[in-house]
Amino acid sequence: MRVGIGILGGGVVGGSLANKLLTERDIIRSKTGLDLHLVRVAVRDLDKARLFPAEYVTDRPEDVVSDPEVQLVVELIGGLDPARGLVLAALDAGKPVVTANKQLVASDGPALFEKAAANGVSILFEAAVGGGIPIIRPLSESLAGERLTSVMGIVNGTTNFILTRMTDEGSPYAEVLAEAQRLGYAESDPTADVSGADAAAKAVILAGLAFGVWVDLDHVYSEGIEGIQPIDIGFARQLGYVVKLLGIAEVTSDGVSVRVHPALVPTQHPLAAIRGAQNAVFVQGPAVGELLFSGPGAGGEPTATAVLGDMVTAARELLADAPVAPRVRIGAGEVREFGTVSTSRYLRLEVEDAPGVLATIAGTFGEAGVSIRSVWQEGRGDRATLLLVTHAGPEAAHDKALDQLSGMAAVRQVAAVMRVVGEPV
Amino acid sequence: MRVGIGILGGGVVGGSLANKLLTERDIIRSKTGLDLHLVRVAVRDLDKARLFPAEYVTDRPEDVVSDPEVQLVVELIGGLDPARGLVLAALDAGKPVVTANKQLVASDGPALFEKAAANGVSILFEAAVGGGIPIIRPLSESLAGERLTSVMGIVNGTTNFILTRMTDEGSPYAEVLAEAQRLGYAESDPTADVSGADAAAKAVILAGLAFGVWVDLDHVYSEGIEGIQPIDIGFARQLGYVVKLLGIAEVTSDGVSVRVHPALVPTQHPLAAIRGAQNAVFVQGPAVGELLFSGPGAGGEPTATAVLGDMVTAARELLADAPVAPRVRIGAGEVREFGTVSTSRYLRLEVEDAPGVLATIAGTFGEAGVSIRSVWQEGRGDRATLLLVTHAGPEAAHDKALDQLSGMAAVRQVAAVMRVVGEPV
Repeated sequence: MRVGIGILGGGVVGGSLANKLLTERDIIRSKTGLDLHLVRVAVRDLDKARLFPAEYVTDRPEDVVSDPEVQLVVELIGGLDPARGLVLAALDAGKPVVTANKQLVASDGPALFEKAAANGVSILFEAAVGGGIPIIRPLSESLAGERLTSVMGIVNGTTNFILTRMTDEGSPYAEVLAEAQRLGYAESDPTADVSGADAAAKAVILAGLAFGVWVDLDHVYSEGIEGIQPIDIGFARQLGYVVKLLGIAEVTSDGVSVRVHPALVPTQHPLAAIRGAQNAVFVQGPAVGELLFSGPGAGGEPTATAVLGDMVTAARELLADAPVAPRVRIGAGEVREFGTVSTSRYLRLEVEDAPGVLATIAGTFGEAGVSIRSVWQEGRGDRATLLLVTHAGPEAAHDKALDQLSGMAAVRQVAAVMRVVGEPV
Repeated sequence: MRVGIGILGGGVVGGSLANKLLTERDIIRSKTGLDLHLVRVAVRDLDKARLFPAEYVTDRPEDVVSDPEVQLVVELIGGLDPARGLVLAALDAGKPVVTANKQLVASDGPALFEKAAANGVSILFEAAVGGGIPIIRPLSESLAGERLTSVMGIVNGTTNFILTRMTDEGSPYAEVLAEAQRLGYAESDPTADVSGADAAAKAVILAGLAFGVWVDLDHVYSEGIEGIQPIDIGFARQLGYVVKLLGIAEVTSDGVSVRVHPALVPTQHPLAAIRGAQNAVFVQGPAVGELLFSGPGAGGEPTATAVLGDMVTAARELLADAPVAPRVRIGAGEVREFGTVSTSRYLRLEVEDAPGVLATIAGTFGEAGVSIRSVWQEGRGDRATLLLVTHAGPEAAHDKALDQLSGMAAVRQVAAVMRVVGEPV
């Protein structure tokens, strides 16, 4: 019942995992009946101090993949290359792969699944979305019989940490980002997180599992949190909302839509309560209603736990010599143009405080085909701040209205635009 | 790829499921690659109107089990008998079983798992806990590598509905129960729900999967919600708590403890936000931190979805002719006497408002080995209401203090006692 394990990547997750395999081998065996035997760990820098003995270390990942003692490959390098080549080589050698690599799965998912199936093995990636939260398996197995309609989540801990701090303290983005970097919640180059790119990859994976359609990352509308101002977080709160960065995957009769953007979420929505670096995924379907999965979205230990759960499944599959893990089934499906997707918007406009201005602005929205749900105006002498929340309408119609507003003399500035998800009770 | 399905029980869940199999067969096939073919449904009353055509109906469940066309048996009768005999017969015939029967799994779990393993098939029961919420599979598979320390949940929708209404409206238990019965949230005989027995069965299952130890139902301390008064819900709120009925499974070096009782939960705890008939399970472990799974805890459609997810796994296993579902591994383990379990308590005492009474009461707790965390006293002439929240201490020590209090002349009445989980921030 012994299964040889090779780990690619000795960073936070890889180190936690190697350490867990070495120190908790007996517990894992008694809980699962499997002897997960660490063979080798490929690292970039042989001289760096590690959580596990140096005898396991190599700097040649391809040797780990080809080692005959290694029966199961765990890829924790991240990024597209060289991870892609190593994963493909492992699958070609008939070795199951467990990975936490959201970029690779998002970009190459269908090709990887096909390669795995052709070699009669699995590629498992529970840790690629939501860190330690079990979400991949519930979507692909427990909910296999449900016609899910939407999967929506806070899937990036860095941005949720930053937004939570901005909300609690009213501090500007740049200041909170610097704090997050100091505390280790944000990378020194935070672009992938704050731009929404990380969340976009995860949303593609969630959509693929929920709807069986793999959306190209190029077709994902993605907007980050860099432009969010504390004043709008404050206004949102007054209107009954919290600002969150959401990854949203939806399916309608018009096709599948995947997008990432900041959104005003009603304070009583389950996602509004997810604070700090926590992650959560909110799933809806006609039969199952609403499900929420929440927990730690990142970190070495939670992620290593998710990886280990997949390793147990992969090891069982090796021993059974039969497909134990569910095969991901990807079909063809319409991907919606973002312009046709229906959203509500929050806008903050700086306008002339003169008679007729509000009527003109309202008229502009009406002409574009967008109706206004609520308006709040605060005058200050000859100018006023106008907050608008619209009803749902196509993105293209919103953009048209926005274009017109930007060109109006009475509108000094379109100071903020964010989307709104749901209505406060 | 066709798998013949026999359903035992044509009630709310069985009807939903049969209807789903007939109307969504193509969708299930395209999502899973499996053709789940409904063969027969055993019902108690042949003449009752059903959601599915009468041609599928029989009133002889044993014929469904023995039908050679039936390859997979779904047990939705509930209760111990005749469900137990039918499930065992199916397993003996080498047919995998999917069940939503928490009583049967809680009482006979290890015997059922053994019987299933001996016949090389699975018994799956995702729907037995938390209705449509995927929790069984995450515990037994995704978290297989984690040394979980506690699983705590709101696992009974009826009692959570009643407590939520009592909280919102300040109405007495009996009145809200009657309303719940009118609305279909409580049975005409609500005993199993309100007494905590239903939650106890679910807590046994959660403990078994999380810790690998199956606790006999007789060793589960279980207290229902019948005695809860709106005044204590109000006081709890003032102190920063919400009152919930919790199923709690914990493991420490002293062994496993499973219990069900009302508890004061801090308002900012994730379980405090679970309202109405919703269910939620809160899982803790050293590596994974805190996970929350929430969703609809009952209802035909959500439960049928959970059953269907299990059917897909069982069908894949049949076709692979190898163990696809994880085998539940139950070992020996210490079960803690409830008296040794450490809890905090909330008490409401009606006392004489005289000098020295508070000191005497505090002394009584001290002698019993329980220390007091906070005290709130409201005088009304010669008597006073005293609210106490203690620090954690062994149940036996609490009981000793309570005994002494009850015998004190200055204590007119111990008006309420509830346990407290966690501290408000």
